Amino acid sequence: MKLLLCGYGAMNRRVAALATGRGHEVAGVLLTRGSSADGHPVYRPDERLPEADAIIDFSHPALTSALLEAETGLPLVIATTGEKEALTEMMREKAQGQPIFFSANMSAGVHMLTEIVRYAASLLPSFDIELTERHHRKKVDAPSGTLIKLFDAIASARPDVHPVHDRHQSENRRTDEEIGIHSLRGGTIAGEHEVLFAGHEETITIAHHAQSKDIFASGALDVAQRLIDKKNGFYTYDNLGVD
Amino acid sequence: MKLLLCGYGAMNRRVAALATGRGHEVAGVLLTRGSSADGHPVYRPDERLPEADAIIDFSHPALTSALLEAETGLPLVIATTGEKEALTEMMREKAQGQPIFFSANMSAGVHMLTEIVRYAASLLPSFDIELTERHHRKKVDAPSGTLIKLFDAIASARPDVHPVHDRHQSENRRTDEEIGIHSLRGGTIAGEHEVLFAGHEETITIAHHAQSKDIFASGALDVAQRLIDKKNGFYTYDNLGVD
Amino acid sequence: MKLLLCGYGAMNRRVAALATGRGHEVAGVLLTRGSSADGHPVYRPDERLPEADAIIDFSHPALTSALLEAETGLPLVIATTGEKEALTEMMREKAQGQPIFFSANMSAGVHMLTEIVRYAASLLPSFDIELTERHHRKKVDAPSGTLIKLFDAIASARPDVHPVHDRHQSENRRTDEEIGIHSLRGGTIAGEHEVLFAGHEETITIAHHAQSKDIFASGALDVAQRLIDKKNGFYTYDNLGVD
Amino acid sequence: MKLLLCGYGAMNRRVAALATGRGHEVAGVLLTRGSSADGHPVYRPDERLPEADAIIDFSHPALTSALLEAETGLPLVIATTGEKEALTEMMREKAQGQPIFFSANMSAGVHMLTEIVRYAASLLPSFDIELTERHHRKKVDAPSGTLIKLFDAIASARPDVHPVHDRHQSENRRTDEEIGIHSLRGGTIAGEHEVLFAGHEETITIAHHAQSKDIFASGALDVAQRLIDKKNGFYTYDNLGVD
Repeated sequence: MKLLLCGYGAMNRRVAALATGRGHEVAGVLLTRGSSADGHPVYRPDERLPEADAIIDFSHPALTSALLEAETGLPLVIATTGEKEALTEMMREKAQGQPIFFSANMSAGVHMLTEIVRYAASLLPSFDIELTERHHRKKVDAPSGTLIKLFDAIASARPDVHPVHDRHQSENRRTDEEIGIHSLRGGTIAGEHEVLFAGHEETITIAHHAQSKDIFASGALDVAQRLIDKKNGFYTYDNLGVD
Repeated sequence: MKLLLCGYGAMNRRVAALATGRGHEVAGVLLTRGSSADGHPVYRPDERLPEADAIIDFSHPALTSALLEAETGLPLVIATTGEKEALTEMMREKAQGQPIFFSANMSAGVHMLTEIVRYAASLLPSFDIELTERHHRKKVDAPSGTLIKLFDAIASARPDVHPVHDRHQSENRRTDEEIGIHSLRGGTIAGEHEVLFAGHEETITIAHHAQSKDIFASGALDVAQRLIDKKNGFYTYDNLGVD
Repeated sequence: MKLLLCGYGAMNRRVAALATGRGHEVAGVLLTRGSSADGHPVYRPDERLPEADAIIDFSHPALTSALLEAETGLPLVIATTGEKEALTEMMREKAQGQPIFFSANMSAGVHMLTEIVRYAASLLPSFDIELTERHHRKKVDAPSGTLIKLFDAIASARPDVHPVHDRHQSENRRTDEEIGIHSLRGGTIAGEHEVLFAGHEETITIAHHAQSKDIFASGALDVAQRLIDKKNGFYTYDNLGVD
Repeated sequence: MKLLLCGYGAMNRRVAALATGRGHEVAGVLLTRGSSADGHPVYRPDERLPEADAIIDFSHPALTSALLEAETGLPLVIATTGEKEALTEMMREKAQGQPIFFSANMSAGVHMLTEIVRYAASLLPSFDIELTERHHRKKVDAPSGTLIKLFDAIASARPDVHPVHDRHQSENRRTDEEIGIHSLRGGTIAGEHEVLFAGHEETITIAHHAQSKDIFASGALDVAQRLIDKKNGFYTYDNLGVD
């Protein structure tokens, strides 16, 4: 594949390294500010872009919006977290003219975790649920996009749940509808998520541990390869396998 | 309910205590040897038994065999581990004349764990699987009945797997078909099971922790209450809900 | 021993059961309101109390204050959480006339956990630390007294640390001085504490799991037995072994 | 530094990459068989070697023996696992003429883990201990060198302990002296070690997780840099800091 990368933070640097290692080509990098990207040619999203098979976006809502406003027509793989609702609306509209894949987490394993959690949430209706994620000390946004995805999966089985982020001044007992949300930060942890189901004298925990960000970079490349053969439309892991 | 308890080890003592606490009556205890059971009347399985609604058996294969050879006709809840194949054959035959429920683990949560593991094993075909259980220092049999149940659930999705109990003298790499089996023993641990799915740069773990044996005693009582309304036949958690 | 119990919630009920099982005698229960305590005679702290060897207090700050204002002269084992500073001051003063032991957590294992954490905090100066506790859904106060004790142990090795209870609206990177505090609530979890040390490409975690509240009830009885031979003074697990 | 690498498996490849990234130079690779090492010049241990500051050995007992029999005189950093006793004896003798550092695990974090475990083993004399390690599916030797190091640390506090590798045919209860040893293999797990202390109604677990082999490669480089300033002698993490 010939790839354009939108954003050039830690994630797209790994995408560039893995892509090259797998025989793909990085045709350029899209940035609104700055012009340096390890020697790759740099473009603004609204200027004329070089020929490519797909664009992989690990950036931030402002840059992703600019990308979605541009007239590329190319298959887009979008992994930006933040402003999910606004971006999803833009993506759905834009997807009438090109295939667009979106996931807050590009790991196929995390997608499968979500499926398992959805399944468990329906099997264990009387169990209390708490969500914990751990990431490296440099990650500012909290909770992670993956945790939000897990929460949404649970909410699809239990519509009345709501998140609780801090209990240290609470004066009330936990209710059935609370889902505690806990974001740990430290060291270089690549990404860990744990779902606790707590019942009567027993607990079930389901956890996913990433060893490195390569699972996301590698996942994005795998998705791009599948997306270039797809019809126009909005895709997620839930419908990528369906033609 | 009026209950007979077959065997009177740690588990049926808890069944007796919980049963009394919930307003049931322990009409007697079945033993082949010994005559002391906290004041409950003691019977041998082959003698004439008092009237009762069901029999709960937490014992050992010899006593369970004797129970299955007796002509009780009562609903039987059987939680004995060991000699599973021979006992299952006896139970299936006997079940033509009375309802018989069998589970190596009476916890409803463990049953659900098994369902989740079966589901995950099919979702994650390329992941290696390892099974670990932890129990108190007095538990001699290893691995636990629950672990064997988990192994069987995985084997139903991956027919070629085989257990590996010790790697410390192995000279070969792990194959796709190995399922490592690990039994930890210590302290008063009530029962913990963990299934590790290890893939490329990521792992998923699914774990069940019991706080006390009450989950098994309580589960057996719950099952007994449902079984007394069932038709003759052989039941497990998989078909107990179906009439 | 002849014991008086101050408060009669879940914990002192277990103390009463264990004490009887071990051959001790419960001479009475101290309450400010109510008069029912499973048949034990009930007293107010300020009235004339029956003869006893020690008082075990699992109650709340108001009742503990009343106990400390009373003129008992008896060895006191105090396990109340909340209003720690005010209560400690009262205890230290009162301890001139009687032996008083205080711990927010009566488990000897938790005390040893604290020692290990203090040791690790000094061995791993460049590692980020996060604290997590899990308790049953009925526990309202958060974080637990034990977690506060762990935080204090860390602060004794790293004086500049401060707690952070919620990161979901944070806009800044984690600093070296932050200690994230996370309180999970669900089911019937007896009490779990985990200390995460996160460094460069590696983590160390130290965790304590209680299976039941009996570790606290049993610990309080063990402490009482040691305290009745002690001289007047204020004791904690740090100096109970020293004469 | 100018470095020679003894062995050129996965670990020394990472050492080569990190060394270059940090401005060091790889002057050559020592192998008994084969001649290919990513373009680095290859030598047999017994031939005349190029000038260098230190040798880093991540290999196997046969190659390490050959290295120790050669007359290099250079500071040696040795991380080979297997045949520990024989190799240690050779190293101690050889160390009269050059500084030699040996550790089955080059991570400073693992060394600190060992210290914590030694400390906990002495604080918790009545707790049962079990050891578990997890590594990637390609690791053949089991248990890991680090687990053996942890076992030795425990044995220094409890001289009567002995390892148990398989319980599935055991017919006896666990004794106080048993230390269960469990080696899990799967996926790409970089290295995880867990020490379980199981007591009465409570457990303490101490775990170390490596995200990547870089902690060992990086640790070996750090040690080499310190070793080149040391006097002749045999070093481990226990005395590397002492001059």
